[in-house]
Amino acid sequence: MKIAYLGPVASFTHHAVKKAFAKDELASYDTIPDCLEALTASQVDRAVVPLENALEGSVPITVDYLFHDVDVHITAELVSPIEQHLMVHPSNYSRWEDVSKIMSHSHALAQCHKYLYYRFRGKTLQPSTSTAAAAQYVSEHPDENAGAIGNALAARTYGLTIVEENIHDFHFNHTRFVVLSREASADRLTLEGGSQKSTLMVTLPSDDRPGKLHQVLSAFSWRHLNLSKIESRPLKTGLGNYFFIIDVEQAMEGVLMKGAIDELEALGCTVKVLGSYHKYSIPAN
Amino acid sequence: MKIAYLGPVASFTHHAVKKAFAKDELASYDTIPDCLEALTASQVDRAVVPLENALEGSVPITVDYLFHDVDVHITAELVSPIEQHLMVHPSNYSRWEDVSKIMSHSHALAQCHKYLYYRFRGKTLQPSTSTAAAAQYVSEHPDENAGAIGNALAARTYGLTIVEENIHDFHFNHTRFVVLSREASADRLTLEGGSQKSTLMVTLPSDDRPGKLHQVLSAFSWRHLNLSKIESRPLKTGLGNYFFIIDVEQAMEGVLMKGAIDELEALGCTVKVLGSYHKYSIPAN
Repeated sequence: MKIAYLGPVASFTHHAVKKAFAKDELASYDTIPDCLEALTASQVDRAVVPLENALEGSVPITVDYLFHDVDVHITAELVSPIEQHLMVHPSNYSRWEDVSKIMSHSHALAQCHKYLYYRFRGKTLQPSTSTAAAAQYVSEHPDENAGAIGNALAARTYGLTIVEENIHDFHFNHTRFVVLSREASADRLTLEGGSQKSTLMVTLPSDDRPGKLHQVLSAFSWRHLNLSKIESRPLKTGLGNYFFIIDVEQAMEGVLMKGAIDELEALGCTVKVLGSYHKYSIPAN
Repeated sequence: MKIAYLGPVASFTHHAVKKAFAKDELASYDTIPDCLEALTASQVDRAVVPLENALEGSVPITVDYLFHDVDVHITAELVSPIEQHLMVHPSNYSRWEDVSKIMSHSHALAQCHKYLYYRFRGKTLQPSTSTAAAAQYVSEHPDENAGAIGNALAARTYGLTIVEENIHDFHFNHTRFVVLSREASADRLTLEGGSQKSTLMVTLPSDDRPGKLHQVLSAFSWRHLNLSKIESRPLKTGLGNYFFIIDVEQAMEGVLMKGAIDELEALGCTVKVLGSYHKYSIPAN
């Protein structure tokens, strides 16, 4: 199989994909839409992109593309620990505390916000297109004495020296990546985990939204279907109009799930089943 | 009064603050935490920061700071239209379609994602710390023929020429800014609007989360208290643990609101009232 992933080389997505699809051909794409378009255009068999980080929340562009733009299916979920390290060019090792600026993806900067605020207050924090791109820049500009925040794979790939490990503010930092396919059938991977779940996107009818969300939750609640996530995203039709992403710890087969979805549709909701799949753990190293 | 706002000069926040506090002293701060810290340190009387965009959703750092880090109150809401324009240095006007790269805040790039994808596919999109910072960079580097995405105020402030207007993908693009104070009493402003609302942050007890959210909504639903927003944010204690931001179209006074909150607390929820305030509209120009 050929797998598109959100690059560049040494990104967090690359780390997850290497563990999950060790024997497959991997292809790096610059943006999340590029990964998804490659999948819908049949240039690849799977696309792997981040969906949600434990600290920063959902990745809006992934969620919105899955809702608005493409018709693909989640066939597996990869949960990967995210460890952010501060790294510099080896020639600047002795003066890393005087870095001129610190570069990383805006999500990574946000994940280390308190560390940066208390340790490097006033330093320029420069957003980059990815953590790996920041590492690459630092490796190519030793004269600037810049720092990058990223993962150990990026440090190895670009020959940088890690000067402070695990600088993310909250210990429990994980990202959920989704494996996407044009077909709905779930992937079985040789990784730890494997519990089943389903993801639905639910749009409420426009008439009576607040009461309707209560009814939506009732449809799951009285059936004892356990929701591991409910999140709202703007519909982009105006402030205050949302759709909901709901994760249910249950496969889609079975009379209870079918009953719940039938009930939601009878209430006037639109339900899109994004996938029924297995959830796997990616090791840190 | 002295008002802190998310700068730099000519940012979208600056535009809103100039309209809402025309006679007050305005002070630009570089980051959202800097605005909030200036307020809690009594260096200013109000802080104005973005809370939610109609296309991109909540601004995570604002929501998280209000929940985790500071004890301040929302005293007004400013809803401002967000119009994104593509601008270049006037000396590059004739060759703007050949821009070397396009710079803006990552949210603004995301708001114009489709425009950029179809019109400038393959061009470098460079994230900047703000839309105004992108405009400033372009004004100071005419030799680079770079483009910036930002508002009309930024074009005027930095002497750039707008070459394409309103390039955001969805017509209805608004941002909600909150006015924050150390005191809870609502501000009355001389702007259009003025309807009342309240914002609560609700944490569910850890025992039975999915069913409990259903109960939380029941507390509002049976009282016919209209929710204009419900959104989950990660608690940062692990994937799947959330708190909820709930907007109610109602002032906090009154027996129904008090009853609903008493009921939530009896269910084991923690309720933080962020504010009871009025909502105003900011004109586009």
